[in-house]
Amino acid sequence: MEIKVLKDILSANDQIAERNRALLDSKKVTVLNVMSSPGSGKTSLILETIRALKKKVRIGVIEGDIASTIDAQKVGREKVPVVQINTGGECHLDAGQVSRALDSLPLDKIDLLLIENVGNLVCPGEFKLGEDKKVLILSVPEGDDKVYKYPLLFSMADAIVISKIDLLPYAKFDIPGFHKAVRGMNPKARILQVSCTTHEGVDEWAEWVRSSMRQ
Amino acid sequence: MEIKVLKDILSANDQIAERNRALLDSKKVTVLNVMSSPGSGKTSLILETIRALKKKVRIGVIEGDIASTIDAQKVGREKVPVVQINTGGECHLDAGQVSRALDSLPLDKIDLLLIENVGNLVCPGEFKLGEDKKVLILSVPEGDDKVYKYPLLFSMADAIVISKIDLLPYAKFDIPGFHKAVRGMNPKARILQVSCTTHEGVDEWAEWVRSSMRQ
Repeated sequence: MEIKVLKDILSANDQIAERNRALLDSKKVTVLNVMSSPGSGKTSLILETIRALKKKVRIGVIEGDIASTIDAQKVGREKVPVVQINTGGECHLDAGQVSRALDSLPLDKIDLLLIENVGNLVCPGEFKLGEDKKVLILSVPEGDDKVYKYPLLFSMADAIVISKIDLLPYAKFDIPGFHKAVRGMNPKARILQVSCTTHEGVDEWAEWVRSSMRQ
Repeated sequence: MEIKVLKDILSANDQIAERNRALLDSKKVTVLNVMSSPGSGKTSLILETIRALKKKVRIGVIEGDIASTIDAQKVGREKVPVVQINTGGECHLDAGQVSRALDSLPLDKIDLLLIENVGNLVCPGEFKLGEDKKVLILSVPEGDDKVYKYPLLFSMADAIVISKIDLLPYAKFDIPGFHKAVRGMNPKARILQVSCTTHEGVDEWAEWVRSSMRQ
């Protein structure tokens, strides 16, 4: 009985995600679903992406948080369209929330939509939003063993960004070991390294984003 | 209909949590439910607690993870009883999982049970396990704004540990601002600062743990 209800919810979510996809296809908008633990640097990477690409690409942002509008305010200062979703307790974004946010965005004037999911390395992996690519961020201070502890997101990500690499001198993180662990469960993911403090690796990340866009 | 099912699940969890409490009361075991984001240092704080207190206090540990036994292996090297729960995808521990783990622990020989929850700053707050105190860890690199974004756990914690304070020179974290934000939603929580690398603050933390124990 419980399982049946859960399946119905997931299937309803997937149906809405497909509707989101169809709408975004018709508007030729590429969508990245950006996921990570709390505090890994999702907002910082989104801000860097905007600064690197906004002269060439028209960008919009959906900010997901349980509460507060802190991140939407930061993004809004970059003069791009942004919508904040407050989930009010829910630990992930779902396709219905994104559908309502899409209604508030000028999709005809957006080429790239960045969705910042709720900070959570588990639940967001189970809810499709209608995205083209899943981006997973893991920050250096979180540690390289997270691949083994949170396998779902690592196995499904299209790009995995190691963030806060400026902290490598102060926190243990085995980069070759991390690559090997990821490769074991996800041979295709692109693995990148970025510091939003020193801007190291931002150009390579921005290049990956551009290469992922619909033509 | 969906809401009713959710309520039934929560209520079933709370009933089992009360049974856990009754068992732990009868054995005079104090239980701390340790929660945080992935990679904030739950295992490191548990290891420091064992090293600081194990000559005076008989300690047992339950390790919760979606997958892997990495943390239980680390704790086991300290020669204390430890049980690993693998939730197999679930984003939090529940009382039933803890109940089964309690069956595997020598409760007559344990005074303090440390439960490491799944790394998640959202969902674990909704599931009582039968604990005496809730401990929330936030690491310096995660940032001081997490209070506003994840209010549930911050509002219900008995102790809030700012971890990785050795990284304060390299990552922005407004300690007075953080205290003020916590006080606004949780006036009673004890706020502590710890580095498991330099061991700064470990004595004060261990003293709080001892003061929280059943007599």
